Amino acid sequence: MFYVKTVSVVMEECFAKFTRKQENVTVALEDSLGFILGEDIIVSENIPGFDRSTVDGFAVYAEDTFGSSESMPSFLKVTGEILMGREADNPLHMGQTQKIPTGGMLPAGSNAVVMQEYTELLDDMVSIYKSVSPGENVIKVGEDLKDGQTIFKKGIRIRPQDIGLLAAMGIVSVNIIKPLKIAVISTGDEIVGPEVQHLAFGQVRDTNGYAVTALLKQYNFQGYYAGIIKDDYDTLYTTVHKLYEQYDVVILSGGSSVGTKDVTSKIIETLPNAEILVHGIAIKPGKPTIIAKSNGKLIIGLPGHPVSALVIMQHIILPILHHMQGTESKTFLPAVQAIINQNIDSQTGRTDIIRVRLTMGEDQHLIAEPERGKAGVFSSLVKADGYFIIPESVEGIEKGSMIDVLLYD
Amino acid sequence: MFYVKTVSVVMEECFAKFTRKQENVTVALEDSLGFILGEDIIVSENIPGFDRSTVDGFAVYAEDTFGSSESMPSFLKVTGEILMGREADNPLHMGQTQKIPTGGMLPAGSNAVVMQEYTELLDDMVSIYKSVSPGENVIKVGEDLKDGQTIFKKGIRIRPQDIGLLAAMGIVSVNIIKPLKIAVISTGDEIVGPEVQHLAFGQVRDTNGYAVTALLKQYNFQGYYAGIIKDDYDTLYTTVHKLYEQYDVVILSGGSSVGTKDVTSKIIETLPNAEILVHGIAIKPGKPTIIAKSNGKLIIGLPGHPVSALVIMQHIILPILHHMQGTESKTFLPAVQAIINQNIDSQTGRTDIIRVRLTMGEDQHLIAEPERGKAGVFSSLVKADGYFIIPESVEGIEKGSMIDVLLYD
Repeated sequence: MFYVKTVSVVMEECFAKFTRKQENVTVALEDSLGFILGEDIIVSENIPGFDRSTVDGFAVYAEDTFGSSESMPSFLKVTGEILMGREADNPLHMGQTQKIPTGGMLPAGSNAVVMQEYTELLDDMVSIYKSVSPGENVIKVGEDLKDGQTIFKKGIRIRPQDIGLLAAMGIVSVNIIKPLKIAVISTGDEIVGPEVQHLAFGQVRDTNGYAVTALLKQYNFQGYYAGIIKDDYDTLYTTVHKLYEQYDVVILSGGSSVGTKDVTSKIIETLPNAEILVHGIAIKPGKPTIIAKSNGKLIIGLPGHPVSALVIMQHIILPILHHMQGTESKTFLPAVQAIINQNIDSQTGRTDIIRVRLTMGEDQHLIAEPERGKAGVFSSLVKADGYFIIPESVEGIEKGSMIDVLLYD
Repeated sequence: MFYVKTVSVVMEECFAKFTRKQENVTVALEDSLGFILGEDIIVSENIPGFDRSTVDGFAVYAEDTFGSSESMPSFLKVTGEILMGREADNPLHMGQTQKIPTGGMLPAGSNAVVMQEYTELLDDMVSIYKSVSPGENVIKVGEDLKDGQTIFKKGIRIRPQDIGLLAAMGIVSVNIIKPLKIAVISTGDEIVGPEVQHLAFGQVRDTNGYAVTALLKQYNFQGYYAGIIKDDYDTLYTTVHKLYEQYDVVILSGGSSVGTKDVTSKIIETLPNAEILVHGIAIKPGKPTIIAKSNGKLIIGLPGHPVSALVIMQHIILPILHHMQGTESKTFLPAVQAIINQNIDSQTGRTDIIRVRLTMGEDQHLIAEPERGKAGVFSSLVKADGYFIIPESVEGIEKGSMIDVLLYD
């Protein structure tokens, strides 16, 4: 006998059961976007490697400029010009200055740069109309990156700016965590592929297989859509056992309504050391979800209703997959605040996922309108801009309350 | 003579100048994730094509169940069982019922389904312990999608759930808007590639080329990194003119500090019907930005400082690129609310982009700490979780204020 478990219990148990799989693969830096970094990155040199000007102007001893103003300029002797990409080989002495471009290397001795607009050049002398403090308009050696510093931690999701910094560090390839290999099967005698243009009575085209595979792709998992399998024990047994051998995770969709879930769970039980961890979750939509473990591999029986299947993928399965893969990204879930335009009931002990459509109301407040499609009405998920969560502990939400809406990517 | 323009003026002018380029390309449904839909999608059949049960139970005339309860059940004669994926060929008469699975087709005559848990089967009779109303536990024909309805508008960004619904509609390939072809050049005598392990004095490795190209990839533009070009008029002239012929957009990075921006703008002026629209923006960081138009093509001179370059790309250039490409996605920018932990000054008339690092404070409030790197300190952008905007009209933000932080993807 199985009991429905709350979302918090499901997450806690699954996080504990599926320990992190760590297998790295090396990719070219420019191909690493969106993947999970598989190693700490330690800085091996100072960046910048020299004191660098952040403006166009004149490199100076800051002390030479103290007290300078429009009415009381200092005068310094120009002893040279720094060129971009060239070593500043003429050291500077007090009372002297050298012209320097943005990004140029400060000559030895100088400790600040006066912006060009506060200077006036007359032959080999320059008037300084503004005082600068030591370090002003300069990036010191190692100020961006210090030799020995751990700049990236294993487990972060690689963003464009991270790629930029890795390039600046002279890194042309990185170790990423090998994406989980995930097979997706759609089951059901009534399910046909999208290529079937004229549906026979009772047939429906596969939604879950395509939506779930696309969702996995969005997060850079190695998703493989294995097609539609009839609700036949032998065929399903052979397919699941074969995919189990080749993949880290097997997701069955459609096999968890009462009609077919017995077949699904029976077949899952035949996998090596199979352990059914979850057989029903206190969540709406998505209650009839199966989560099982077999020798460290994760086997999922998604609800057959497409809306339920995708909600469960987003809210329950993706966090488990990220955890299995060792993703350590900070998760401040991006959200927008909106005002709910009606009362929403919810049972305590059950998590409710309410899809909403957003419109801009008066006073620039977003208004959230629930998209109350039944679980089988997939277009409700398409019309929605995002969803909000009514946690187990909350009984309902009153009209006019401010809610946090998580936006679909 | 050029004048610095405010962000709002820049956006207005660029949106008006760059009209939408509409060229479609057909891709397989499963390859369409994240691209921009190039056509309206009109529903050509009813989905579901038949009245479908949303539960396992018994198909009934709702009227037969009225008044049923635990203590006063109704009794109906079971005249058959509906199988999944099969037509329900036995019509139902009043007083009768048929067993039906989730997703099964309702037999003619029936208008509701009683969930199995409110029934008890005894030989060929079933006791009904609960009243259902007409339509209960049923998705009516066309309730998900109605023949003739426009379900997707041209210009939306295709999400996983959209792919699911398109599959359900029998669509195996879609027209997407051909991604803009965008060339990225890094300029500067001091810039070398990341493959250079030992930097000579004054050299820095390219950051912008890699970060900008990755950012374009993140939004599915067809970005091409054309490499590093020395600050030499003739070479740069040849390169820019060649890329201009082949690409819709050319982005030069590094050529807009005073030292080299004259070369960049001089070369841009040699392009056919060149028109420099923006030469300096009232934004911090990122002031020295050039935006030009040449025969409908967009030419960008990004600031040389990597932080400025990426901020300008995120905040100014991406919206223009999305507009050029005809992206119509709703833009409720996802954000999190946080409390700023210090006073921030800002000039009116200037937009400030403040990178922040987020931590969880007491009471589950996020605390935002500005990452105050100078424009040349790229690691500040890597350490930041997101940024917030101080608009032109605002003079500064007081410590303790609630701000909206836009998270980096």
